[in-house]
Amino acid sequence: MNMDIATVNALPYEDFVDILGNVVEKCPMITAAVWSGRPFLSLAALEAAIREFIDALPESGKEGILRCHPDLAGRDLQSGSLTRESHEEQAGSGMGALNSGSLAHGPAQPGVQGALRNERAVERARGIEEVKKICHLRLQSLVLTDNRL
Amino acid sequence: MNMDIATVNALPYEDFVDILGNVVEKCPMITAAVWSGRPFLSLAALEAAIREFIDALPESGKEGILRCHPDLAGRDLQSGSLTRESHEEQAGSGMGALNSGSLAHGPAQPGVQGALRNERAVERARGIEEVKKICHLRLQSLVLTDNRL
Repeated sequence: MNMDIATVNALPYEDFVDILGNVVEKCPMITAAVWSGRPFLSLAALEAAIREFIDALPESGKEGILRCHPDLAGRDLQSGSLTRESHEEQAGSGMGALNSGSLAHGPAQPGVQGALRNERAVERARGIEEVKKICHLRLQSLVLTDNRL
Repeated sequence: MNMDIATVNALPYEDFVDILGNVVEKCPMITAAVWSGRPFLSLAALEAAIREFIDALPESGKEGILRCHPDLAGRDLQSGSLTRESHEEQAGSGMGALNSGSLAHGPAQPGVQGALRNERAVERARGIEEVKKICHLRLQSLVLTDNRL
């Protein structure tokens, strides 16, 4: 299914969220939040609204997104709990693991807290970039790119 | 199932999100975000962390939460898409509808935009209060209240 952006803009929020709610894994709230920004001029504008919403979240919210995202190389794949989109991406994109696991399970020896905080911020930023790349792929699989814009 | 707060605090984030991820409907990201705040001294402290996270969201994020929440009296119930928790609450609590539908579908005549904006803000605030009440009920059904705190 590939809708054009005019079709997307005409969707009531229930359908908008049903169809696009998992472009950020298990975070339909993000899709539901940007719905207010219709009409979107292009797929790129919709994607930009999602990216801006993510960037405006507190750091804990960004970590929350990462913790909702399956670690592609890890436990979630083994337990079979990945969504359809993640299976397709893992099969098709060769994209690396998100390391949300290592984010959550860092050691906590005294004296290295500062370094760990820095490492955590770097991992968080890297993870969020991966989330945005996956969001881009998912949007492209759902909405026609408008080359005029 | 009713865990005590010590058990909750000992959960890895995957289990924390699996068990508590729907205390705000379809928003496991919120639960995943507050996981960083462990250890929680009490169920009330966990609930407060969730409420604070919601309050810190941009208004669009609050609207996103409401759009993810079934309108208890409306379309979602008729289509049978409510989660187990919502069915139990509707059966048991007598709580009113969230009006997320009317939030999204307000008319847009010229000259009444200011009034509509105010009405929308009031509805959003009222809806978020309902979400918090539901979150309270869901937490109480999952985590033992510690009367000492």
